[in-house]
Amino acid sequence: MSSTPKPLPVIFDTDPGIDDAMALFFLARHPAIDLRAITTVFGNAEVAVTTRNALSLCALYGLEVPVAAGAAAPLRPRSEAWYPTHVHGDDGLGGQSALVPAPTRQADGRAAHELICEMVNAAPGEITLVAVGPLTNLALALRHDPSIAAKVRQAVVMGGAFGSHGHFGNVGPVAEANIINDPEAADLVFTAAWPVVLVGLDVTQQVVMSQDDLAALRGKGQGAGDFLWAITRHYESFYDGRDGIRGIYSHDASAAIFLTAPEAFGLRAGPVRVVTEGIARGQTIQDFQGLAGSGSPWSHCPSQQVCVRVDAARVRAEFASVFAG
Amino acid sequence: MSSTPKPLPVIFDTDPGIDDAMALFFLARHPAIDLRAITTVFGNAEVAVTTRNALSLCALYGLEVPVAAGAAAPLRPRSEAWYPTHVHGDDGLGGQSALVPAPTRQADGRAAHELICEMVNAAPGEITLVAVGPLTNLALALRHDPSIAAKVRQAVVMGGAFGSHGHFGNVGPVAEANIINDPEAADLVFTAAWPVVLVGLDVTQQVVMSQDDLAALRGKGQGAGDFLWAITRHYESFYDGRDGIRGIYSHDASAAIFLTAPEAFGLRAGPVRVVTEGIARGQTIQDFQGLAGSGSPWSHCPSQQVCVRVDAARVRAEFASVFAG
Repeated sequence: MSSTPKPLPVIFDTDPGIDDAMALFFLARHPAIDLRAITTVFGNAEVAVTTRNALSLCALYGLEVPVAAGAAAPLRPRSEAWYPTHVHGDDGLGGQSALVPAPTRQADGRAAHELICEMVNAAPGEITLVAVGPLTNLALALRHDPSIAAKVRQAVVMGGAFGSHGHFGNVGPVAEANIINDPEAADLVFTAAWPVVLVGLDVTQQVVMSQDDLAALRGKGQGAGDFLWAITRHYESFYDGRDGIRGIYSHDASAAIFLTAPEAFGLRAGPVRVVTEGIARGQTIQDFQGLAGSGSPWSHCPSQQVCVRVDAARVRAEFASVFAG
Repeated sequence: MSSTPKPLPVIFDTDPGIDDAMALFFLARHPAIDLRAITTVFGNAEVAVTTRNALSLCALYGLEVPVAAGAAAPLRPRSEAWYPTHVHGDDGLGGQSALVPAPTRQADGRAAHELICEMVNAAPGEITLVAVGPLTNLALALRHDPSIAAKVRQAVVMGGAFGSHGHFGNVGPVAEANIINDPEAADLVFTAAWPVVLVGLDVTQQVVMSQDDLAALRGKGQGAGDFLWAITRHYESFYDGRDGIRGIYSHDASAAIFLTAPEAFGLRAGPVRVVTEGIARGQTIQDFQGLAGSGSPWSHCPSQQVCVRVDAARVRAEFASVFAG
């Protein structure tokens, strides 16, 4: 009998996206992960682009798992679509989509939220959702079949900013990009009766993958290392210009790494709500001290886990590990 | 010719209140301060109580300055009045109001905001407002005579929480008591074209006045030290029970001390808005990184100063200094 634990079944909900492409490679190659499906969502680009990118990345990484296209817009319609082309390029891949093969297959016939519900119902208690874009697909899945909440092992979300290290927002004073893209969906996801871990800016902005880290991937990963080096050139200039860091925040990869190296993260428990109105729209607020009291918006909401500390060196090493050998 | 600078003319807007009583003694006795008037507001207790307390404290401290009663309620009427009797006692003075003399005079005939406007207009450019309760009186003054904004030297406010050291709120996950008591007034005050310094929880919760600090005041200050020791007994048990500190946060005194020891505080510049809707009502948000962009709620708002660092030992020593001799 082998002592190796059974790999963790994962559905990856994503909007590739540069750091999404990093996270996907990690999930695809890590021996402790059993990647079962990819679902796509609008976010870093429109959903047609993120779905095409996901299919192309599958071709590049040699992945056969289903790719189901998801939401094109948030739960509450927005007056104007907006995509962060200054961060991820017009093609969602830093202007380097010519480096990925054309998709070799079609997207799955199911909508993303349908795929999620079917897979979760087929393996109750087993599936971990890793969501690194706007949370629209997860919210639609909860609405479609509320019973899945009790059957998901864990939902690990890249999103939010709780200010524990002075990190409050990246697209507004208190708004993180994934959450502001669909605050209503995020509030549904965080208040559902399933265990959520939030990997937000508090920790992702503490993990700076340096130019040296990225350069070290070149020639490794059967072409993936060269590809990730190429697509992070644009992303790196953006961060260098704005945040003055020499390297990149690998937000989505940090969420994926939480699965295999949870000991690298420090967690804080308490109910989490999302501001949906007014000037703080998109802010995530955790009542971790129980200050809200009874009858507050946090009352009767399940306690969730927010990452507030991280061993950045451990996270960077974990990422590099999937390129070894 | 003396080289001593002219003492700073101050109007103190207050809701005594235990830490208010500490701040008032400091302002009354510090040689660099010229306390010109006291205005009262609801907050730690109803305004009839805070006004009576202010008059009694004048009798105790030997102060002759006018005391003008101000707002009894916030700009947006609240459905139910609420006073923090568990912090400040039913009488606003930790249950020790028997220790102060009865008022020896009446309140000024003017409303608080009228007094503020008159004094500011009479000495343009000279008056510093120190506001340590809900900001209703200052907002009413701005509405009554918008021209005063250009004539106030500085408004130093105890209020808000910006999370720079993990301090987000004391009456909710992101709400500080003074601001949540009148968010609309606070937003008016912070967006007015006068220079505001916010002394919020980020720094006031770093200044713990210990039981030893307070005990050392006994027998000093012509009776004030014994009085402050007595009224802080209740306040100290509250903080001991809730925050596990051995001592008290002297919130309002920290704001007063900013006037005479500004070098003890580290400031951060940027426009400040107050959330007036939804679950984050009462939160103060400073766009200190310019993340909000043009057309945002922070655009075209004046840059204000938020205290984010403090030399706690220096603040405690400055407070003790007015009891020497």
